[in-house]
Formats: sequence, structure tokens, C-alpha cells
Amino acid sequence: MSDPSPQPAFVLVRPQMGENIGGAARAMWNFGLDRMRVVAPRDGWPNSKAVAMASGAGRLLDEARLCATTAEALEDCTYVFATTARARGLTKPVVTPERAMELAQDKIAAGGRVAVLFGPERAGLENDDIARANAIINVPVNPEFASLNLAQCVLLTAYEWRRRTSMAPPETMEMAKTEWASHVEMDKLAQHYEERLDEAGFFFPPTKAEGMKMNLRNLWSRMPLTRADVQMLHGILRQMVRWKDRG
Amino acid sequence: MSDPSPQPAFVLVRPQMGENIGGAARAMWNFGLDRMRVVAPRDGWPNSKAVAMASGAGRLLDEARLCATTAEALEDCTYVFATTARARGLTKPVVTPERAMELAQDKIAAGGRVAVLFGPERAGLENDDIARANAIINVPVNPEFASLNLAQCVLLTAYEWRRRTSMAPPETMEMAKTEWASHVEMDKLAQHYEERLDEAGFFFPPTKAEGMKMNLRNLWSRMPLTRADVQMLHGILRQMVRWKDRG
Repeated sequence: MSDPSPQPAFVLVRPQMGENIGGAARAMWNFGLDRMRVVAPRDGWPNSKAVAMASGAGRLLDEARLCATTAEALEDCTYVFATTARARGLTKPVVTPERAMELAQDKIAAGGRVAVLFGPERAGLENDDIARANAIINVPVNPEFASLNLAQCVLLTAYEWRRRTSMAPPETMEMAKTEWASHVEMDKLAQHYEERLDEAGFFFPPTKAEGMKMNLRNLWSRMPLTRADVQMLHGILRQMVRWKDRG
Repeated sequence: MSDPSPQPAFVLVRPQMGENIGGAARAMWNFGLDRMRVVAPRDGWPNSKAVAMASGAGRLLDEARLCATTAEALEDCTYVFATTARARGLTKPVVTPERAMELAQDKIAAGGRVAVLFGPERAGLENDDIARANAIINVPVNPEFASLNLAQCVLLTAYEWRRRTSMAPPETMEMAKTEWASHVEMDKLAQHYEERLDEAGFFFPPTKAEGMKMNLRNLWSRMPLTRADVQMLHGILRQMVRWKDRG
């Protein structure tokens, strides 16, 4: 995995207008970013309006990875940011774009794969998407007037990446050789726990089950787990089930 | 001259499309800037397309100072920046938006009046305008692809102003109210898991038991857990034991 120009992937989740997808591609490429992933675009793919708008950044659309779900788009990622205008009551670190791209640089230098989620134009990301993220990016806009559009939000984040990385390289990190768990590994872990705990009757009463599941998924997503950690946590659960089965 | 909220004025020089003027107003107000000046807009003034596009930032257009020439727009200014994509062979300091807003803050704090010039969409500022500036702002875009539009250029500059001048960044604001688990709570959690997993036969074979316990304790200690997380993790384990006991 020797990436010639390591950089975060920008994931557009359920984008609506083609023009905005094209605008996002231009915003990225202005600052040298060219890894785009697109989750379930409303008007299908490829999108001619996106291509027309992207003009000189059309290559990003050609090479964009089209995914059916947010989970699929994040499969290989080890650290995920979600951009959102509002706080959602999820316990998760909230950082500025500046701090986020600083973290992203550190994670990438340590061998991680970083993604940034951008929500659909009107509604923004859903809680289910946000629960997959390790941290939230919040642009410090005027509290009386927050009207950043998709391309602008992409622009500011990409700008911070370039501002950050055109400066001094980050210090080499202690955990550089660590194999971090990928998103798909984290997802399987969360699913394993959710299934067994469901069987065990943990999510009770039923009216609270959804909230409890969300909290548990959110807990996993916040944890900086290595692949070895994930294996151990699977092992713990398997052993508890074996214990039960032995009676 | 006691300005209640001192800030730089943004001067749009000969802007063409009304939509871009409205977009610039929104970009400014997103970051709390509301002093706009407009020099010789192509389509006259007021501009209904600008008003439509500005929506919630329409007040900036109502209050904008309309000027016939760049010289008139800068009359009361003591320090002027010109934004430009290309170097023009003019002997003048060239700074990043970040450095520019740092300088702007210093100048304003010292009682100065600062303006930033933005050129027309296609051609950008003319040399005659740039010659009036004390320094040039150059956004460090991808040299292979520079396609910032007027509103985006305004956005990045306004963003840097706010980043510079907002005292405390909203970093980790959502985690700020979080009750982190204390060391003793973490210790009890580690102990709870260690005891139950010992009963369950997890630490096997015996020669590896100590190493496994160490890894597990190390895992807990690296996790940024809240008190609620710790309660949930206790609950999970208790439920697994209950499940076993029910047979």
C-alpha cells in the first residue's frame, strides 16, 4: 500500500443536483484532492450535469467510486469524519476543519485511510451515517446565518487539507506500525455484538432498543481499535456464547 | 471612529453576474462579515438577481456602498489587499489568505481601515486596481487547476477572517459536556471483564493467560470512554452472564 500521494477520500452521500457534484469535484481539485466516492446519487451515475459543471476536474468523476451505501464507501477506511451543520446529541468529538485535516494528516502518516462524509444538499447526513464516523467536522460559521452549500463545504475542507499539508510534514508517530481496523472490520464487530446481544435480550425494553443500538454503534465508532483489538473483542463475545452453550 | 465590530470591507470590483454578487454576500455573512462595497457593477444597481441569490444575506446588498471607481471605494481605507490568481510582476508582498487576515486584524487593532479587493469573474482585477493595494492575496490552489469563482474566493478570505478572530474554536464542543470515566471506573470495568472472562474460560491456554489479560487491560486503557460507555459495557457483560444462567 504505497500511495504516491496519500490523501483523504471525500465521500458525497446521496447527493442530489448534478451541478453540486461537479462543483464538489472542482472544489477538491482546486486543492489537489482527487479521490471522490459517491453514495447513491439521486439522479443516477454517470451524471451529465455533474460532468458539465466539473469541466477541468472531470477526471475525478470518471474515477469516482460509486457505492450503494455509506458502509460500502467506507469499507477500507480506518478513520472517518462526518461534516454536519448541527450538533446531533451523539457523543463524538467535534472539530474544526483545520483540526480535522491536522488529524487526517496524522492518521494518514500513521498508515491509516481517512474519509470525509458530506451529506445531501438539503437535509445533510443522517444520524445513521454520522454514527459511522469517528469525529464530526463543524465549520465555525456565523450562528445567525449558516448557508454553506455542498461545494463550499468541500472547498473549505480541501483548502484546510492543502494548507495543512503544504506546511511542515507531521512528526513521525509512536503507533506508526499499528494496523488499524478498517471500517468494514469495525462494522462486522458492531454487527456481531448487536446480533448476540439481541439474542441475549440486552436491547430491552423494545421502545429503547433502537436508541441503545445507536449508542453502541456510536461507541465502537469512537474507539481507536487495532485489528488485534477487534479480534480480541470478537473472541470475548464468542467465548461468552460458548460458556452459555456449555450451560 | 469607534466601530462596534471592526472588520475589513470586501470590495467587489466591476462584478458581472448578479448571482455572483448575491453569492459573495452569502459567503461573507456566513463568517459574520457585512461590509460590502460594489464598484461599477456591470448590470447596474440594485440588482434583482443578486437579491434573489443573497436570500438571508440580503441586508449586505441593501447596505452596500455603491462606488463609481475603485479609488472611490478605497477612499477611507488605510490598508488594501488585492486578490489575484496570477502574479503580475508587480513588486508587492504576496500573502496567503491566512497571513492576510492576520495582518488585517493587526492593522484594524491599530486603528486602521482595511479593504480587500475582488475582481470581476473572468478577467480578475486589472493592474490599475492592483497597483492601489498594499499587498496581494494569493490562494494557494493546485497549480494544475485554479478555478475559484468569485464567491469561493470571498468565502475563503472571510473564513480566514473568522478563523483568525474567533477566540475559542468550537473544538470538541459536543464532547465538552461529556462525563469521562474516572480511572477507578475504568479499573472496575477491566476487573469485571477479567473476572467473568476467567470464569468463561477465555484466558486459554494458561501459559498465554497473563499476556492476554495484559492486552485486554491495555485495550481498555487506550479507549476514550465516557461514564455512559462504561455503564453500557458493564451491562453487556451482565446480560451475557444472565443469558448463560437462564440456560
